[in-house]
Amino acid sequence: MERQRLPGRDRTLKSAWKRYLPVLNWMGRYRSADLPGDLLAGAIVAIMLVPQGMAYAMLAGLPPQVGLYASIAPTLLYGLLGTSRTLAVGPVALTSILVAASVGKLAPQGEQAYLLLAIALALLVGGIQLLMGLLRLGSVVNFISHPVLSGFTSAAAILIALSQVKSLAGIPMPRVEGFPTMLLETYRNLPYINWPSLAIGVAAIFILVYFKTGLEKHLAKLKIRPAWRVPIAKSGPLVVVVLGTALVWGLGLDQRAGVQVVGQIPSGLPRLTLPAFDAGDLGALGSAAATISVIAFLESISVAKALASRRREKVDANQELLALGFANLGAAFTGGYPVAGGFARSVVNFSVGARSGLASMITAGLISLTLIFMMPLFFFLPKAVLAAIILVAVVNLVDVAGLQRVWRYSKADAVSLLVAFAAVLVLGIEGGILAGAATALAVHLWRTSRPHVAMLGRVGDSEHYRNIQRHEVEICPRTLAVRIDESLYFANTQFLESWLLNIVAERPELERMVLVLSAVNFIDASALESLENLVSELETAGVALFLAEVKGPVMDRLNGTGLVKKIGQDHIFLSTHQAMQSLECV
Amino acid sequence: MERQRLPGRDRTLKSAWKRYLPVLNWMGRYRSADLPGDLLAGAIVAIMLVPQGMAYAMLAGLPPQVGLYASIAPTLLYGLLGTSRTLAVGPVALTSILVAASVGKLAPQGEQAYLLLAIALALLVGGIQLLMGLLRLGSVVNFISHPVLSGFTSAAAILIALSQVKSLAGIPMPRVEGFPTMLLETYRNLPYINWPSLAIGVAAIFILVYFKTGLEKHLAKLKIRPAWRVPIAKSGPLVVVVLGTALVWGLGLDQRAGVQVVGQIPSGLPRLTLPAFDAGDLGALGSAAATISVIAFLESISVAKALASRRREKVDANQELLALGFANLGAAFTGGYPVAGGFARSVVNFSVGARSGLASMITAGLISLTLIFMMPLFFFLPKAVLAAIILVAVVNLVDVAGLQRVWRYSKADAVSLLVAFAAVLVLGIEGGILAGAATALAVHLWRTSRPHVAMLGRVGDSEHYRNIQRHEVEICPRTLAVRIDESLYFANTQFLESWLLNIVAERPELERMVLVLSAVNFIDASALESLENLVSELETAGVALFLAEVKGPVMDRLNGTGLVKKIGQDHIFLSTHQAMQSLECV
Repeated sequence: MERQRLPGRDRTLKSAWKRYLPVLNWMGRYRSADLPGDLLAGAIVAIMLVPQGMAYAMLAGLPPQVGLYASIAPTLLYGLLGTSRTLAVGPVALTSILVAASVGKLAPQGEQAYLLLAIALALLVGGIQLLMGLLRLGSVVNFISHPVLSGFTSAAAILIALSQVKSLAGIPMPRVEGFPTMLLETYRNLPYINWPSLAIGVAAIFILVYFKTGLEKHLAKLKIRPAWRVPIAKSGPLVVVVLGTALVWGLGLDQRAGVQVVGQIPSGLPRLTLPAFDAGDLGALGSAAATISVIAFLESISVAKALASRRREKVDANQELLALGFANLGAAFTGGYPVAGGFARSVVNFSVGARSGLASMITAGLISLTLIFMMPLFFFLPKAVLAAIILVAVVNLVDVAGLQRVWRYSKADAVSLLVAFAAVLVLGIEGGILAGAATALAVHLWRTSRPHVAMLGRVGDSEHYRNIQRHEVEICPRTLAVRIDESLYFANTQFLESWLLNIVAERPELERMVLVLSAVNFIDASALESLENLVSELETAGVALFLAEVKGPVMDRLNGTGLVKKIGQDHIFLSTHQAMQSLECV
Repeated sequence: MERQRLPGRDRTLKSAWKRYLPVLNWMGRYRSADLPGDLLAGAIVAIMLVPQGMAYAMLAGLPPQVGLYASIAPTLLYGLLGTSRTLAVGPVALTSILVAASVGKLAPQGEQAYLLLAIALALLVGGIQLLMGLLRLGSVVNFISHPVLSGFTSAAAILIALSQVKSLAGIPMPRVEGFPTMLLETYRNLPYINWPSLAIGVAAIFILVYFKTGLEKHLAKLKIRPAWRVPIAKSGPLVVVVLGTALVWGLGLDQRAGVQVVGQIPSGLPRLTLPAFDAGDLGALGSAAATISVIAFLESISVAKALASRRREKVDANQELLALGFANLGAAFTGGYPVAGGFARSVVNFSVGARSGLASMITAGLISLTLIFMMPLFFFLPKAVLAAIILVAVVNLVDVAGLQRVWRYSKADAVSLLVAFAAVLVLGIEGGILAGAATALAVHLWRTSRPHVAMLGRVGDSEHYRNIQRHEVEICPRTLAVRIDESLYFANTQFLESWLLNIVAERPELERMVLVLSAVNFIDASALESLENLVSELETAGVALFLAEVKGPVMDRLNGTGLVKKIGQDHIFLSTHQAMQSLECV
């Protein structure tokens, strides 16, 4: 994480350029051998992104073309600025549902105001991410623990899936918020199912699942060239879009059977737009924008890091924030909505062989061509197919195995997972992640507030001192060696003080106590004061205190404090064995 | 902290009685030799408590007798139930100003409603403390760090002192809230100073300070018997009360010079009252009650612990909560207001030689006698004298030396102290302690989120491996040993992963990495997942991972997880040296 220091001003300047414009790192060194990989990857991601972009826009309550708009400028900007060479930026499921949840409170879906608010949200998200990047807050996201993120994602996926049931089944039902209401409304509207829609949707799901799971093996059996297998397997969304559209067009199902279709989409590239919003909405939008900024960054950085490390490449969290910030600003100024790095598309980008940001540019170019020439082809695309694409994409996000694993490993961590999961369903997405993060924090404090403390004895004739409860050891009369397995800070000083004083109260014969600090990584001001009190209290009680194995950085800090004066330099030893020797215990 | 297991049901029952009624521990074993100490201590504490009780009641905005009521039943109940034999329970400065701040929002001072709300507050505080005791939440208070408490106390002392200026100077000024307003209003009212009041007040301050600082030495020089020195030195408040009252009465200053006096106080013991309050006030009172419960408990337990340890006695935090809870309920049902264990009085109790709860009972008896027979004597007691008593009592709470000490030791801890201090002055007392606690938490997370990581090398031919930056060591080519000086949890996993992957990216020759976990006290579920990813990522990058010095409790947990399977049992070593030997580095 340390920045490398380079000699000379010139190199520093050059390095700063490369630092903030990572495109310079690969542009100059581009080899023609990289081109086929980039071309293929760019094309396949475009094929995935066109239907996904439209589907996620629908999930966000926006017209389908907005999802495509959000796939061009952001993709290009990320390609220039991002440190990952394979992250595919564009609309994703989590941010889409967050957009729907927050904007839905301020304007009804389908109106111009709704669209304008979504665009304004992209502006705010971009601004927040830029600011976080400039303030180098890339590490802030660490404060959301994995279990909380897992619980949050699972619950959000369930909300997303449930919100798609009405499109899949062709039920004409207004959008509602909150899990219980959604469940109830969906149930009450079951009599209005449009069966042809549902049939198309379910068929699309089967095809998509087959493409995802069984197809690659069958292609291998059919001796299809390996280079072709991934492209074919990943074209599932394209296939269901083509089949669904052809079916509805051929049989006239939109007119004859009431199957809802995407309808007319305006052709052409997005225009430059100037995002604007009412100052009165800033409060509601601001908190949503903060949540989306963090969630979008979290999703992007984890994907980028995972892929970069496989090729020993580096990802810089703060530069990623800047790149994502510009990508979102790009979305805002071209009529798009908030974007992030998507998991599935990035993995495809990587595994098909994208070598540089050029792949992203090819993707952006192909989507532009689609917008210019192919929009009329999507007229008869049934909405049930888009719903099926979303459903199959999010079902993997429900992480039951993760819960089982965490539950087996640590009940306390599992509690924070379950709190986040339940809170998302009960309180909604934003409240859920806050409740989860607070629980994770409380769990951490609780865990470190009652540290493991071991009384030590000597192992045979060695210089090793181990826990008397785990090992056969010898102890020294009237002297107690205690190892504290936790840094000392405000949440555990009282526990420790009570523990030690109780030991002293229980053993009237005790005269000397050796604190072994080999696992103490820092001592905060509260603990320092507490230790000073402890020395006085032990002294009054006739017990002398000694320290052993104080770590270098901890000792640096302790030097010159009243504690060291009180204990006395001659009571502080490098090793437990030295302490015991000087106390004539060995 | 562990409860001792006793054999047999009978002894357990007996021990439970003694546990919940600590009076049984000393009552049966009472020796006549203990009596003189208890008598003297009880009398001296009563002498201190009468003026202090009236003064603190005035600080709380209540009639003076309420402070005395709050000194009888609570003192008796604590004497029966408390585990400390020397803690003197009654009105204290911090809870008094908290009562004024919270009740002042709901009713005007001087009215019956104000008094009833203060009594209701005692009921709520008692209830909360009882509940906390029954839920064994005695350790919850640990989450307020010492620097935060110091900043909070200093700012509260300044608020208290400032609130007394008007009584000291005889300014007829309504009570106002908030530091800036108080400062401004006091300044604007300076022209209305009552000079005789101010003269009496300032003289009382000088006398009190002399009693506190110089008198004991002078008594020693005068060869006064040591046993008499403390009682004389501690009677400062009584002396200024007597002198002030005599002066006002003799010169008729209340009539002639407008010196404000305490006036008529109803004689007699408090009656049993049934506390009651409006459900509508519950919200406002509830949050104040929660704050007072915690602050009162914090003050009491720290005093009790400090004194108990000097005699190798034990204090049980949860039993203390129960005792304080009953003390506050006792206050509520006898017309008193919230109480806590006071620092100064408890130290006197201890140092004069209180041996048991009997001292508290004597105190309560003497205060009862005062209430029955001596109230008319206080008619001419000037309020300026009571203000002087408060001022001298709280000035010690402003802890500048503490700030300096913390600042030198840790800037981060000093920041949380200053935030708490400033927030109390700006946001008020409750907001201040919350802001301070949140800052302390953030400081702790920040500190543990960027752990100290050391690359290790071998010291000479020994089995010791130390930081290559602090010691002369030898390293092994293509193998890196890294020691992480922090438990691994969600806030630092990302940092660590990045750090390690960056090292790998910078050193293409690296083939093996040994993580030395001697300072890792636990690994949470986030870190577990992160480590699993790390193993895969390092593997893809061609680096094998090894673990060394995993602690017993950590290894217990890791066994059976995917991580151990992925790393392989043969890659986990007891000591760094064993790992290095098996990697043919030594």
